[in-house]
Amino acid sequence: MGPNDRRAAERLDRDDPLAGLREQFVIDDPELLYLDGNSLGRLPRRSIARLREVVEREWGERLIRSWNEGWMDLPARAGDLLGEHLLGAAPGQVAVSDSTSVNLYKLAAAALDANPGREAIVSDRHNFPTDRYVLEGLAAERGRRLELVEFDELEGPTAAAVERVVDRRTALLCLSHVDYRSGALADMAAIDAVARRAGAMTLWDLCHSAGAVPVELDAAGADLAVGCTYKYLNAGPGAPAFLYVRREHQARLRQPIWGWFGQREQFAMGQGYDPAPEVSRFLVGTPFVPGVALVEEGAALLAEAGIERLRAKGIALTELIVALHDDWLAPLGFGLASPRDPALRGSHVALAHPDGYRISQALISHARVIPDFRPPDRIRLGPAPATTRFVDVWDAMDRLRRLVADGVHLSVDPTRAKVT
Amino acid sequence: MGPNDRRAAERLDRDDPLAGLREQFVIDDPELLYLDGNSLGRLPRRSIARLREVVEREWGERLIRSWNEGWMDLPARAGDLLGEHLLGAAPGQVAVSDSTSVNLYKLAAAALDANPGREAIVSDRHNFPTDRYVLEGLAAERGRRLELVEFDELEGPTAAAVERVVDRRTALLCLSHVDYRSGALADMAAIDAVARRAGAMTLWDLCHSAGAVPVELDAAGADLAVGCTYKYLNAGPGAPAFLYVRREHQARLRQPIWGWFGQREQFAMGQGYDPAPEVSRFLVGTPFVPGVALVEEGAALLAEAGIERLRAKGIALTELIVALHDDWLAPLGFGLASPRDPALRGSHVALAHPDGYRISQALISHARVIPDFRPPDRIRLGPAPATTRFVDVWDAMDRLRRLVADGVHLSVDPTRAKVT
Repeated sequence: MGPNDRRAAERLDRDDPLAGLREQFVIDDPELLYLDGNSLGRLPRRSIARLREVVEREWGERLIRSWNEGWMDLPARAGDLLGEHLLGAAPGQVAVSDSTSVNLYKLAAAALDANPGREAIVSDRHNFPTDRYVLEGLAAERGRRLELVEFDELEGPTAAAVERVVDRRTALLCLSHVDYRSGALADMAAIDAVARRAGAMTLWDLCHSAGAVPVELDAAGADLAVGCTYKYLNAGPGAPAFLYVRREHQARLRQPIWGWFGQREQFAMGQGYDPAPEVSRFLVGTPFVPGVALVEEGAALLAEAGIERLRAKGIALTELIVALHDDWLAPLGFGLASPRDPALRGSHVALAHPDGYRISQALISHARVIPDFRPPDRIRLGPAPATTRFVDVWDAMDRLRRLVADGVHLSVDPTRAKVT
Repeated sequence: MGPNDRRAAERLDRDDPLAGLREQFVIDDPELLYLDGNSLGRLPRRSIARLREVVEREWGERLIRSWNEGWMDLPARAGDLLGEHLLGAAPGQVAVSDSTSVNLYKLAAAALDANPGREAIVSDRHNFPTDRYVLEGLAAERGRRLELVEFDELEGPTAAAVERVVDRRTALLCLSHVDYRSGALADMAAIDAVARRAGAMTLWDLCHSAGAVPVELDAAGADLAVGCTYKYLNAGPGAPAFLYVRREHQARLRQPIWGWFGQREQFAMGQGYDPAPEVSRFLVGTPFVPGVALVEEGAALLAEAGIERLRAKGIALTELIVALHDDWLAPLGFGLASPRDPALRGSHVALAHPDGYRISQALISHARVIPDFRPPDRIRLGPAPATTRFVDVWDAMDRLRRLVADGVHLSVDPTRAKVT
């Protein structure tokens, strides 16, 4: 019984230790096959209750008193929870704050300012756009040079490849842990070691890995990291992001946006910015409390499931996609645009097809499958381990092959609409 | 029948055209007198329904599709609503984004970078801390000089006083429209005229005026503005802030945080940052959708009430505080630390008392009145016009005078707890 027998997928679901987790999410329409958990994760049921508590009781009834009844500590508490269970970071190094882009700006600027004698910022030419743009802006502002390296698309930035481009001129190496297109999973520890030998700091973008693959920031020797919470962490659209600053760097690094939530004696409201000695110096303005609460709920839910089990299921789900691709889709003109070795891959798979955009649109409009599309020709399938069944993957791949075999996508207007 | 007769307050409530507005908010405990609407506004009932719609239907059911079904336009839509009804700004100049501190950083940096030949940033030595800290950081980063001017506390920054400190060396003048301590209301148009003559740009902090006093950004000739939404706009703790960039400046100003939501062809995900030609170039990362939706609800509610009516009630409420202060509190050692002329005052009143901290704490713990406290000795009373009755003010002032006359506050531990 091979992967192209649906009963194999049914058996995987029966044996899945995380099968029950799905019931903790709002899934109103099981016929809609949602393979875009890598873009926007599903809504946890507990988050509805938590939001009601935060909004109706804490805000509505307790009002301003809630700041002294838990809100002030929320960014650090949610950060520690993420750190302990999902990011491999001891307490006091992770905080929830702002957006990924703003956090990237703050930490990259801090690293550059701490290394005035080094001119280069090194990143990946195919890194997620906001990372490249933020670094480009910082390079322009601070008179540094941004080197966008063309790494092998399927391998991503290997330690060997990084070794060739990082040297004593490098102030900062900024990479994604999991590539947003191919899903290539970087060897964080090996790359951190390379950077450390060159005296460069590392800043990791964990958007596509947090909650999907084990991250070991402390053990890997990572210096800095940021990441979003609305993908695998299921905290909702645009929910506050997180940042990590290794403890040994906290006292010497200063970020450029000197807001009152970074101030040591915040409510003395005194003259002169004097940053807090700990990770809170990387905070800026008043945190969006309902959003941080949603991060806490999302993180708590995955913490209970266990990142190792989530990772194992993520591998099995993407292995099923790869196997069905080989059997069904390769003959239809698809190509696998993700690493074949699951140990080198995050929790999503990219399939390349010349008609990728129309196919992805047709999947949504005609087949009730939601993937996403990334230029130039990539259909991304992100089966979030917490909420996706093996039969969902099987059915989605089955609908995909039929749709393309029948040419359904050829009726789709190829004019590109907004795609997120 | 003078103000110290409760029946006068009852009559004001009977005649109040906004009396019904209060029913649109969650007020579970009418005995709790909440005079901290200038710090955290109350929860509108409609916001509960909207949040449920955004979270349970748009996120939970529509999932990623919601980005194309309204979420993408939300920051601009909420901004235009604020602009039209509360800020005096024509469409296309206001966006909801990030925190006030981050917005202040972006706009102040843009103004400085557009005026490289001018060395000075001028602000108020008693401006809200985050404003001073952000400007201090920018001055340090960009080699400019921050001049914190000591304006008269009760007058605030008058046009005449500003004229003495702004000149051809001034790149940017950054002031609060309403002083967070005294409530002094600045003459925006007159000050903008002074700045314009000197060739300096103006950046207004509207945190304590948006939704409380009419703001006429376009008519006043303001260049830039930022403000929070969790005070009079009732969008909840830490809700996304807004920014205003006068249309004529949009194409030439560039802010330093180059995120993907500021990119012209965002979803082409191409190489090189190319900022959008309009106000969206001042956006950065993925907006927090539930938060922006709360801003839209809060703004819509006040828009329906009408800012002129809100302002008239705000004046009447603070006039009642001043009158009762004079009758009841002045003999107990209080002093009015706000302008006496209501035309020169926002919607809150500060009362100074040497024991201000203990009195404000005792009001909360012993009298069920919630004010807030600001160093060194200020009890702030912010009776939000949308949710506060005249009898609430009367009763709060009555409880306050009794509490101090009886010395209840003397039993409070003077060790300062966190106060927000």
